[in-house]
Amino acid sequence: MTFLMLSFPERVEVFRRHFARDLPEVTFASDAAAVDPADVRYLMCWTFPDQLETRYPNLELIFSVGAGIDQVTGVPIPPGARLVRMVESGITTLMRDYVVMAVLALHRRLPAFIDQQRRAEWKSQPFVWADQRRVGVLGLGELAQAALGALAPFGFQLSGWSRSPKEIDGVRCHHGPDGLAAMLAETDILVCLLPLTPETRGILNADLFAQLPQGASLVQVGRGGHMDAAALLAALDSGHLDAAFVDVTEPEPLPADHPLWSHPRVVLTPHVAAHTRADSAAEATISNLRLHLSGQDPKGLVDPARGY
Amino acid sequence: MTFLMLSFPERVEVFRRHFARDLPEVTFASDAAAVDPADVRYLMCWTFPDQLETRYPNLELIFSVGAGIDQVTGVPIPPGARLVRMVESGITTLMRDYVVMAVLALHRRLPAFIDQQRRAEWKSQPFVWADQRRVGVLGLGELAQAALGALAPFGFQLSGWSRSPKEIDGVRCHHGPDGLAAMLAETDILVCLLPLTPETRGILNADLFAQLPQGASLVQVGRGGHMDAAALLAALDSGHLDAAFVDVTEPEPLPADHPLWSHPRVVLTPHVAAHTRADSAAEATISNLRLHLSGQDPKGLVDPARGY
Repeated sequence: MTFLMLSFPERVEVFRRHFARDLPEVTFASDAAAVDPADVRYLMCWTFPDQLETRYPNLELIFSVGAGIDQVTGVPIPPGARLVRMVESGITTLMRDYVVMAVLALHRRLPAFIDQQRRAEWKSQPFVWADQRRVGVLGLGELAQAALGALAPFGFQLSGWSRSPKEIDGVRCHHGPDGLAAMLAETDILVCLLPLTPETRGILNADLFAQLPQGASLVQVGRGGHMDAAALLAALDSGHLDAAFVDVTEPEPLPADHPLWSHPRVVLTPHVAAHTRADSAAEATISNLRLHLSGQDPKGLVDPARGY
Repeated sequence: MTFLMLSFPERVEVFRRHFARDLPEVTFASDAAAVDPADVRYLMCWTFPDQLETRYPNLELIFSVGAGIDQVTGVPIPPGARLVRMVESGITTLMRDYVVMAVLALHRRLPAFIDQQRRAEWKSQPFVWADQRRVGVLGLGELAQAALGALAPFGFQLSGWSRSPKEIDGVRCHHGPDGLAAMLAETDILVCLLPLTPETRGILNADLFAQLPQGASLVQVGRGGHMDAAALLAALDSGHLDAAFVDVTEPEPLPADHPLWSHPRVVLTPHVAAHTRADSAAEATISNLRLHLSGQDPKGLVDPARGY
């Protein structure tokens, strides 16, 4: 009964220590060449090893190192195996903090001030109180709920959209295609925290931007594949959108000649909004393995039909 | 019994409505030429009218339109009059939100990413978890306490410094000269929210920056007179300090050729961190007048000995 972890050495060592202390009944391995494939019941990785479908005949669970699983969408897995996303407090906390930073910065017109600074221009900007600012979040999973909870004390009007109906205290929840249109029409700062699936690919496009009110802003912390960057640039250039924080692009790294880099109303960060915290991820993974060993579903289990 | 308000027309109209509705027994006036000086018991202004000491012989209270009173430091007032700072939820909320934005941005290395963006450089930055990041606030008044309260949920290690001892839940409080040195030595992100007095003028100088740990950052939202801008630039250039958010300068507006504008690790905003919200300020002022009329001290009463 082996847990095989394919990741960076520093992260592997943290997991190895946690497994040795907290789950010694499971053999921890990190060298794929040194294990008997038939022993591997649990695999942790980012992208899959070649021929995963047949490589480990007794695989039960495949753990993604990260919160998303779009990097393996469509890659076949063994019939008996199930895929698990990473749900751990480190990623959640980082994403929450980045979203609060970006929303406050857009609310307070920081991109306009950064742009003025280039011209040494001392000038205030039109101002809206937080209780008149409507923040809408695409996606209502763990990360989105943490971000909404952290935004609440600032007094924003909060709403969120998900595929299926949800209820969250203090958040106006929308769902389905009609719900999306309703939320967009009343959103000043839009935050994308969707999983990347065939349905959500390209969702941040010209049509969606046109549905936002004049002067709206964007926080793009989903996946690069969610956004048509040319459509964002056009919406900014026309003045329909005010500004954007963009942390994910397609491709990554973004080529140096891409116009997103130099747009005066875009703040571009190099996919740093959130990453897995090794110690909390090890704890979450061990807790998930214990659930599985006791016959329960692990947290973050992927529904193959939904794709997340 | 007249309340004379000298300010922008839009703000005056909000006050006029509130006074008419909530304190009709006090005559509200905004035209200094049209009032009998002997009737003026209460004056609201930013800088003082000429010869304030003798202009209104029956003056009891002088209300500053803003949170600071450094703009009138040393200007004589009538012997029977007392000065009141503006303490109202609008200023407090705006300052809280700006400080949270700036601290999160410095914590997440946003100035470094903005700088990389100029060169189209896709590269992550060394990273510290919030529970290892020490945020220290100079000043522990209304604004500072609101900022510290809003920073707490993000998990930072919080400390604060004031002239006299204070106790605040979840904040390591320091006071006096020894306390200042102790706090600076353990502060990664320093926030200046001091009043400007003869004692605090120039406090953000080379000596203070040298007491911060290597790699520390600054949020300067006090007054321009607190900071030696050349010392900040030197500390940034030497690599001792990492980055700064600067909202107040001396003079304001900052001349276009000042090097603060173009430093790659300075985010400069044009004194927009906080301003008085007319409706909440009118409510706070009326509430203060009621306290005074019933023989109690108004909130924000300035101690002439301390200078704030």
